[in-house]
Amino acid sequence: MIGVLEAMSSDDRADLLKALPENTVNALLPLMTRVERNDVRKLMAHPEGTAGSLMTTAFASISKDRTAAGALSDLRVAAHKKETIYYVYVTDPQGALLGVCTLYDLIFARPETRVEQIMNRDVITVTPEFDDEEMVKLMQRYDFIALPVVDDANRLLGIVTHDDVLDLVKEEATEDAHRMGAIEPLEDPYLRSSVLSMIGKRGGWLLVLFAAQILTITLLRGFETTFETTLALIFFIPLIISSGGNVGSQSATLITRGLAVGDVHVSSWARVLGRELLTGLALGIALGTCGFAVSTIMGSGSRTLEIGCTVACTILCIVIFGAVTGSLLPLLLKRIGLDPAMTSSPFVASLVDVAGIGIYAAMATLFL
Amino acid sequence: MIGVLEAMSSDDRADLLKALPENTVNALLPLMTRVERNDVRKLMAHPEGTAGSLMTTAFASISKDRTAAGALSDLRVAAHKKETIYYVYVTDPQGALLGVCTLYDLIFARPETRVEQIMNRDVITVTPEFDDEEMVKLMQRYDFIALPVVDDANRLLGIVTHDDVLDLVKEEATEDAHRMGAIEPLEDPYLRSSVLSMIGKRGGWLLVLFAAQILTITLLRGFETTFETTLALIFFIPLIISSGGNVGSQSATLITRGLAVGDVHVSSWARVLGRELLTGLALGIALGTCGFAVSTIMGSGSRTLEIGCTVACTILCIVIFGAVTGSLLPLLLKRIGLDPAMTSSPFVASLVDVAGIGIYAAMATLFL
Repeated sequence: MIGVLEAMSSDDRADLLKALPENTVNALLPLMTRVERNDVRKLMAHPEGTAGSLMTTAFASISKDRTAAGALSDLRVAAHKKETIYYVYVTDPQGALLGVCTLYDLIFARPETRVEQIMNRDVITVTPEFDDEEMVKLMQRYDFIALPVVDDANRLLGIVTHDDVLDLVKEEATEDAHRMGAIEPLEDPYLRSSVLSMIGKRGGWLLVLFAAQILTITLLRGFETTFETTLALIFFIPLIISSGGNVGSQSATLITRGLAVGDVHVSSWARVLGRELLTGLALGIALGTCGFAVSTIMGSGSRTLEIGCTVACTILCIVIFGAVTGSLLPLLLKRIGLDPAMTSSPFVASLVDVAGIGIYAAMATLFL
Repeated sequence: MIGVLEAMSSDDRADLLKALPENTVNALLPLMTRVERNDVRKLMAHPEGTAGSLMTTAFASISKDRTAAGALSDLRVAAHKKETIYYVYVTDPQGALLGVCTLYDLIFARPETRVEQIMNRDVITVTPEFDDEEMVKLMQRYDFIALPVVDDANRLLGIVTHDDVLDLVKEEATEDAHRMGAIEPLEDPYLRSSVLSMIGKRGGWLLVLFAAQILTITLLRGFETTFETTLALIFFIPLIISSGGNVGSQSATLITRGLAVGDVHVSSWARVLGRELLTGLALGIALGTCGFAVSTIMGSGSRTLEIGCTVACTILCIVIFGAVTGSLLPLLLKRIGLDPAMTSSPFVASLVDVAGIGIYAAMATLFL
């Protein structure tokens, strides 16, 4: 076991130990060298979702006074212990980051050139607390192989490498997809999760959504007499609530994904609202017209026109409601520090169900 | 314009030209050097979704007979034109790929060593037609910075680099998320897409889903007399169809995402079916019990017990139906070569709506 741990890179080792029970970790720690032990303790201290939790301490660093040739010979000795030597970080004796050289710079400089003369001083850095998703955006913007993590005193603590970022992007997308489908994100791959844990991850949200549906029962009961006198109204309930729900989950998907990739920001809420109002209006008119046609053709004969108007106006309103709710909720969640992906399609659909039946009943009272 | 094109890497240039109208491309091509022009034509020929469409021809290659020192001096001259020089590909005079050296290997070999002696001959390669998502899985498994693309004769055509893969992973996740939300994937970021194009991308699926809802109207009309005699049944329609729809979109999400990241394969359909039957049964019993409680408590007084049984059994059946349909549909779509993400949450919900009302009516006939 300790052999496996020693062969791993420091970031992967810390991740593995985080996943083990505490007493196993306590049994393993004394078997490591003191340096490794302190290193693992430091890395394990960074919470998930931060740059710190992804970084490795196995970076290559040199002094600014070293020559290019000297730096290369240092690297030759230490390279096998480093996660990457394509970027070499220049630090002062206190460990503060002064600049960065690529391996390419070192090879192609004259051998006697001092590192200070060739290093790039404009280093883009992040702190250990930096949000990991924002870090991905930085890596993506600049096509970096690695990104240095520094503390408040600009001391180099570690680096995050391209392979960890690629893994993270996939994991984040999976988490978001699961949340959007109203599932607590699974920790393990689907086929390796136990059925019991799966039921737990799915059951929680299902019960919340079930509870929301109790409101639809209350609303439908309240309008019992309306339905009694015009039974044909019930034919269109699924049509109406599904139209609103579909538009709502489209909007929630667009905005949640836009926030995740950085195309949409909370500050753009007014533009989002404007666009969704317009889109909702257009889609609402289209679907409302279809609803009018379908309900007048398929109605039971009596009061067909009134029912048609009720259905059409309800669809128009609920589609706009769905577009606005579905788009603003993820922004609101992000604003208050929650994951916008919690605005799942089923969640928006449930909200729309309740609102849809309310609007339908109100429209029926108006037209009938 | 031609200056911008010249400054771009060959893969990005080909992507840009693909996005331009044909007559603009025809005007630009003659302005390039012949080598660049042929290069762009070759790269543009690869369809989206393949490794070929992501590759760049700006790779570093050397002959196997070159010495380490000679290779480094070649690189010094050509490096600025290469997308990466951290991997150097060894080719024969016909361009066939023989092996790969890292820049690290070249620097730390004795200068007179021949490349042949230090190169790694076990190179993992892909063909230009190789599926880009499968390629991402390879890059992720091996933590490569670049992956070589070869033709059937093993001739090196280009390389795909880590930054393009990172971009691709994000794009694919966005496309999948959009499809799962029943939206034709947008080409541009949300705030930069025109409202009109947005309406188009959303409207298509909405109309399909609307058409599916016409079936719910037909079904509800068919059971008009049942609802007439026991009006309280209608109170539970939204509850029932939403429970089934929620479980169905959970299953669709889990399997679609599992397929995307490679955790689930079409060949595992029997295991998936088994797990979903079990999960559906457990969730169905839980939600069915809640449904029984809610409908007996909130019912109108008469025939409460019968209605309770009808609601409970319908929920049990529709939850299992949702779990099975939601999980098998993405596998089926993948099997026939379509994108599994087309099994969107709204799509599964619509199927469940239709089935749910059918089952509800059948159960009502049974119990009442």
